[in-house]
Amino acid sequence: MRNVRLHIAYDGTDFCGWQRQGERPTIQGSLELALKTILGAAVPVVGSGRTDAGVHALSQVANFRAPGTLPPLEKLQIALNNLLPPAIRITRTAPAGPEFHARHSARAKTYRYRILQAPVCSPFLSRFVLHYPFTLDRPRMARAVRYLEGEHDFTSFAAVPVRARASNQAGELLASAPKPAVRRIFSARMLWRSRLSLLIFEIRGNGFLHHMVRNIVGTLIETGRGKLAPGEISRILEARDRRLAGPTAPARGLCLVRVDYDD
Amino acid sequence: MRNVRLHIAYDGTDFCGWQRQGERPTIQGSLELALKTILGAAVPVVGSGRTDAGVHALSQVANFRAPGTLPPLEKLQIALNNLLPPAIRITRTAPAGPEFHARHSARAKTYRYRILQAPVCSPFLSRFVLHYPFTLDRPRMARAVRYLEGEHDFTSFAAVPVRARASNQAGELLASAPKPAVRRIFSARMLWRSRLSLLIFEIRGNGFLHHMVRNIVGTLIETGRGKLAPGEISRILEARDRRLAGPTAPARGLCLVRVDYDD
Repeated sequence: MRNVRLHIAYDGTDFCGWQRQGERPTIQGSLELALKTILGAAVPVVGSGRTDAGVHALSQVANFRAPGTLPPLEKLQIALNNLLPPAIRITRTAPAGPEFHARHSARAKTYRYRILQAPVCSPFLSRFVLHYPFTLDRPRMARAVRYLEGEHDFTSFAAVPVRARASNQAGELLASAPKPAVRRIFSARMLWRSRLSLLIFEIRGNGFLHHMVRNIVGTLIETGRGKLAPGEISRILEARDRRLAGPTAPARGLCLVRVDYDD
Repeated sequence: MRNVRLHIAYDGTDFCGWQRQGERPTIQGSLELALKTILGAAVPVVGSGRTDAGVHALSQVANFRAPGTLPPLEKLQIALNNLLPPAIRITRTAPAGPEFHARHSARAKTYRYRILQAPVCSPFLSRFVLHYPFTLDRPRMARAVRYLEGEHDFTSFAAVPVRARASNQAGELLASAPKPAVRRIFSARMLWRSRLSLLIFEIRGNGFLHHMVRNIVGTLIETGRGKLAPGEISRILEARDRRLAGPTAPARGLCLVRVDYDD
């Protein structure tokens, strides 16, 4: 029984998210279907976490345990890419240790959210950015972002009230997180690509609650519009009340960039 | 009667090309529908030339003559972009002189064809490149490209036998071209973007026959594979025989980059 690690890039626009949902197009469902065609047996694929409908990935990580014999991994990768739609690509395959589990073994994830500030949204970018051509106070947003770093209870930025059991967190709670809604943010920053008029929010943490990044971005946009002071982020975190944070930013601007493991 | 010039960017993937075709999704049809909604009257939109199904544009140029009053152009642009699908964007509107005609007034066009040489095709690029991960002799292709420059009869690279009347050339024959299949290529070059593993063919000329760029690219790939000597381009041009040139490269790698006018 070999344990195999996959790195996957996808354009999430035309998929109902990562998680398998019967006949609906999903990333996990597409991977499992392709693997079944190659291996002749149904094999569950474990992802590092779910991504929502319309969310993209530069390098999602998953693993599966192969029953019986397996083709060489470089051939497996080519065969998978031949079967998968062009919007899903296996970018790397690697043997994994017997204990490796894409979700439980993950130590950190990095997400990026892209906001296009140009007056007109290029049709070559429109699937991958939020087009927001109105004025945003970027230094103000950059100050707000600092309040996210460190360990906090992110209940105010979660899609639904956080339940007691860790495993309820849409597979996003990593082993190292001590409380259901407590996450450690290693870094959070705003980047400005002036040539493209692209404002990028990048956040790296030990785990994320459902809708957490998109709710943070919605709140940062409120900050950039002058509706919230940068320090309000702290007050919102402390209140543990979803109603105090901003709206959920659209999925298309969000991308899972990287998942880190100990190895 | 005001004459208005439009610059249009589009992701051609989901369209049946530029030219209006009844109910089928086309760029021209989408523009005319949006204009009719705004102006309350059907107004034909003239493009600098047709692009085929799946071909993109960074800056296609078109014009239309507005009957009666017209909103200010910056408002017209916003209204058009609100009505058009995100895959089509008006990037600029400008008043044009009474004689301006997007097709007849065009002096040069620049096309780019992008070939991705990376082993795996990024899902964020797959709509906009030809994925060709096999070895290509780039210096050889760069030598071949030089034989395209200057004035030539491009019958060998045209989709169909060139007919006598100039206007039969899919709207691609510009006023300055003296013979039906004769075109002047001002520049043709190969660019290599090593960081992206992207090979780019860029060609600027006074007009292009139907499928001409894609047939040239198919022939250049044959050259890069070692099937043709670089100098064969000259022989193929002289023969005026489509059968001697390479296959038609797929539409998705092609983009109309710029149209030049005297003003």
